[in-house]
Amino acid sequence: MKSFTQNDLTSMESRYRAQLINSLSGFKSANLIGTIDNQGQTNVAIFSSVFHLGASPALTGFIIRPHSVDRHTLENIEQTQSYTINQVGQKFWPAAHQTSARYAKNECEFEQTGLSKTFIDGIKAPFVAESLLKYALTLKEIVPITLNNTLMVIGEITNILCEDSAITDDGYIDIESLGTVAISGLDSYHESQRLSRLSYAKPHQLPVHF
Amino acid sequence: MKSFTQNDLTSMESRYRAQLINSLSGFKSANLIGTIDNQGQTNVAIFSSVFHLGASPALTGFIIRPHSVDRHTLENIEQTQSYTINQVGQKFWPAAHQTSARYAKNECEFEQTGLSKTFIDGIKAPFVAESLLKYALTLKEIVPITLNNTLMVIGEITNILCEDSAITDDGYIDIESLGTVAISGLDSYHESQRLSRLSYAKPHQLPVHF
Repeated sequence: MKSFTQNDLTSMESRYRAQLINSLSGFKSANLIGTIDNQGQTNVAIFSSVFHLGASPALTGFIIRPHSVDRHTLENIEQTQSYTINQVGQKFWPAAHQTSARYAKNECEFEQTGLSKTFIDGIKAPFVAESLLKYALTLKEIVPITLNNTLMVIGEITNILCEDSAITDDGYIDIESLGTVAISGLDSYHESQRLSRLSYAKPHQLPVHF
Repeated sequence: MKSFTQNDLTSMESRYRAQLINSLSGFKSANLIGTIDNQGQTNVAIFSSVFHLGASPALTGFIIRPHSVDRHTLENIEQTQSYTINQVGQKFWPAAHQTSARYAKNECEFEQTGLSKTFIDGIKAPFVAESLLKYALTLKEIVPITLNNTLMVIGEITNILCEDSAITDDGYIDIESLGTVAISGLDSYHESQRLSRLSYAKPHQLPVHF
């Protein structure tokens, strides 16, 4: 096995290091975050850092770099407290990737990438029409991560829209059947193939595959 | 599309709700976290909440529920400041799942699940021998998330061990070639199939597939 020490990491060329370190966490979620500012200008941007935080209350987190291309997303959420998270699917993942380009504030990523926006009653932020599983959130807290000047944005889920066919009897949503993609590293996109679901693990007995 | 409102979520049966909400973030990473206490008792537990936090410094985060089965992992990290993260692969994912059973503190998940531990010089915490991409971390900060009494544990990466063959010329690690699995919901495991890598997105030009 190849071994890297902390010294190796420190002396590494920065783009090589970014690719390497971004590969370490494993597969990442692929989501488009939709926002709007108080003047009605919409924005949509891809994030690979959305993660489950809790089911009750229903909380989702994501990491944002406030001085990067992501800043329009952050400014809009701070203005309106409203945003949507839209799973990226096999039919539009290249357009989703393209939202990460550094467009000017007055250029709308929906128009630039060909993605379509859609709205529902009571929610300010736009959804991505192409996404088959999407939900609206209200901002609850922005937690500063002082170690590297990033922020964790936490929202509570208020409305879920999902293709009926993917919702199974126990509440699990078969996101593979929706064509949801995963990301590895900074730029690699993957579809999935289920190995199995496993029953809740208990000591001294084998889990059941189902 | 099926629509759920906040009222629907509040009145939902709790296990159904846990399955549903856990499906929303998209594909999750599958990692085993290895720890040891000051008496030398080792622990290994699966987590689906490990995420990339930054490349410089090289920081990784994960979410932990301090009053759950995860608490031995937390106690050990607090004692020794040392832990390892080990990507879960296609050859041992059922054993990895089994580590989530509620074993007693004096039962070692390595012995109970058949996973093998291995150590390297200078790192207290055990690695999972079967894992083809793994790294050691030093605890940097535990950030309380007061909204739901969870904690975000942040560590700095000090040593990486990876199968040589998976490291590409630009630093990207081909985790698909290592058989790294992804999780959806609470209990579904998936292998992956690459769609493509895409070049860094720039405004007004299409990304290149490679």
